[in-house]
Amino acid sequence: MKIQNQSYRTIWLDAEDEGIVHIIDQRSLPHQLTIEPLNSLEESAVAIREMHVRGAPLIGVTAAYGMYLALYHAPADTHWSSFIPEAIEQLQQTRPTAVDLFNILQRVKVALEGLNQKDQLVKTAQALAAQVAEESVEFCRQIGLHGLQIIEKIYQQNGNQVVNILTHCNAGWMACIDYGTATAPIYAAHDKGIPVHVWVDETRPRNQGARITAFELKEHGVPHTVIVDNLGGHLMQHRMVDMVIVGTDRTTRNGDVANKIGTYLKALAAYDNQVPFYVALPSSSLDWSIENGLRDIPIEQRSGEEVKYIQGLDEDGLKKVLIAPSKSPALNYGFDVTPARLVTGLITERGICEASEDGLSGLFPELND
Amino acid sequence: MKIQNQSYRTIWLDAEDEGIVHIIDQRSLPHQLTIEPLNSLEESAVAIREMHVRGAPLIGVTAAYGMYLALYHAPADTHWSSFIPEAIEQLQQTRPTAVDLFNILQRVKVALEGLNQKDQLVKTAQALAAQVAEESVEFCRQIGLHGLQIIEKIYQQNGNQVVNILTHCNAGWMACIDYGTATAPIYAAHDKGIPVHVWVDETRPRNQGARITAFELKEHGVPHTVIVDNLGGHLMQHRMVDMVIVGTDRTTRNGDVANKIGTYLKALAAYDNQVPFYVALPSSSLDWSIENGLRDIPIEQRSGEEVKYIQGLDEDGLKKVLIAPSKSPALNYGFDVTPARLVTGLITERGICEASEDGLSGLFPELND
Repeated sequence: MKIQNQSYRTIWLDAEDEGIVHIIDQRSLPHQLTIEPLNSLEESAVAIREMHVRGAPLIGVTAAYGMYLALYHAPADTHWSSFIPEAIEQLQQTRPTAVDLFNILQRVKVALEGLNQKDQLVKTAQALAAQVAEESVEFCRQIGLHGLQIIEKIYQQNGNQVVNILTHCNAGWMACIDYGTATAPIYAAHDKGIPVHVWVDETRPRNQGARITAFELKEHGVPHTVIVDNLGGHLMQHRMVDMVIVGTDRTTRNGDVANKIGTYLKALAAYDNQVPFYVALPSSSLDWSIENGLRDIPIEQRSGEEVKYIQGLDEDGLKKVLIAPSKSPALNYGFDVTPARLVTGLITERGICEASEDGLSGLFPELND
Repeated sequence: MKIQNQSYRTIWLDAEDEGIVHIIDQRSLPHQLTIEPLNSLEESAVAIREMHVRGAPLIGVTAAYGMYLALYHAPADTHWSSFIPEAIEQLQQTRPTAVDLFNILQRVKVALEGLNQKDQLVKTAQALAAQVAEESVEFCRQIGLHGLQIIEKIYQQNGNQVVNILTHCNAGWMACIDYGTATAPIYAAHDKGIPVHVWVDETRPRNQGARITAFELKEHGVPHTVIVDNLGGHLMQHRMVDMVIVGTDRTTRNGDVANKIGTYLKALAAYDNQVPFYVALPSSSLDWSIENGLRDIPIEQRSGEEVKYIQGLDEDGLKKVLIAPSKSPALNYGFDVTPARLVTGLITERGICEASEDGLSGLFPELND
């Protein structure tokens, strides 16, 4: 997608120096566009843990590139049979909830098995990182085409009125490599000339909606309005939302959906007001090993400082300000789980299905192998 | 209640100069305690409109004092029969949703009817302002005693474990004159030695929870934790909330409850997880003329700048920072309506009732006169 009319992806290998991977450091958006070079496994792990990059698909791809950097910069005589599992372990420890991280690191592990020459290892890891990145782009493109059909249908049912879509957090191209998951159908509809308007939940505490989704949509020219997370229910009660699309960090076998904290509240409001609630996901976000999302998906707890301090821009530049009593404690969970019963459908790269084991098995029969 | 161990109310007549009313300018809380003198009708109207004071009961009392100041500072030969309705009109125009404003101004209007001597008018208005302030204090105290019974019962059912109470926005003593509405039962329980812990929704966009409720609770020594508005659903799913208590800006004849934007989402989550959801209200917040809250309660729309900018403290003092793309539009409604079907009960100064016309009529039979 484009920023100031220049095409970007969220992560790419340096054109000249193969020992450097570039990312957009998303912490300073929308106020500054910061390109950060990653030179090592450690820098990749920090970028994931401290959320220079975020979003389940992008976390997975960054981890793949982190493994590549680890191998690239290791001495040729490294003891690979201990080095590789330790590097994988270090990346697995960065964040607990998004399953793409674990799924992709598992693929890295399998791909590297049996190799013990540095050049083979580096070549294989680089190829795999590029492959998972390309897969993500293609999956998102397909999600866009499938989701587009839903938007087109609503557009026709609405009598060709603007289709109002609410989204929570950022499941845009900035959470992936390109297109996004939840945003892919929106971009596809907009590009096809269907009038869409997006209600952008600011998504406290880190405001990925107000900071990143709004930025993306603005750069692509998609009409949108930033709202507080508290507003969506009211908008749905007043028929100002035609559909909700969100992303997911992990979707279980039975269709329970972990996503950014607060998603569950929007799903409840959608259900209460008969607004369709869709979750867009590439198969890399599926966790077939878990049935009950509420019970079994690990939910990341982050620092309460993320709640009490907020970053913004004043005339002197970026500032962090305190927005609660300094002595009051704060609690900060990053995700919640929306039970499958509240989900109208899952939009995947292979099509749209019910949020259930049957629905998912129909599209991904190989998961039962 | 106390701030740094000194007793305060939220509004009071100057001890020496009867032409001045003092308020706490709540915009700088929790970082600064600012006492503001009001010298006129106009300053009172600004204080309400620009939210130096807020909270349905306090808005009503401030309006009563605003009428008093208008009369006090008017020349003795004022043409009262036009001056009084114009002053009332000016105060009515400040904010649309909280009904206490209209209820109390109606009482002022009735009290002043037939009077045409300045000294009588001033004396009557001052007495009425003091009366509605005292009534509010007494109503809140009674709400505390009735609500305490609910907390005590949960405490016993819990096996004498800490009672976790979630509240949204500030329906504390800062929203009233003293005690608060939603907080009165909490203070009563805490003072009685029942261990309570309060989940404080920060309550975007103006963060009355993080700024004011947390401040109040901290000053009174009540254990509490500040959370983003997105978190409550997750906490309820995981049985970390024993009850919800909120205030209201207007409750209709059938028990629909207008309250700070986002309240409806918490009510949905409480309902979905069988967590009791109570609304604490003095009778001054009842609107017997309206049945369907969703259709008929006017919902205030405020500037989108309140969403895009946030005030906080850094090492140089209070700052306003931009937290969204400057060119993205924002929409800002102040309240939403929680349908009576989601409300477990109403806690009033006369006791607890079902959120229904029958329930309210039982406690307030005179409303049907």
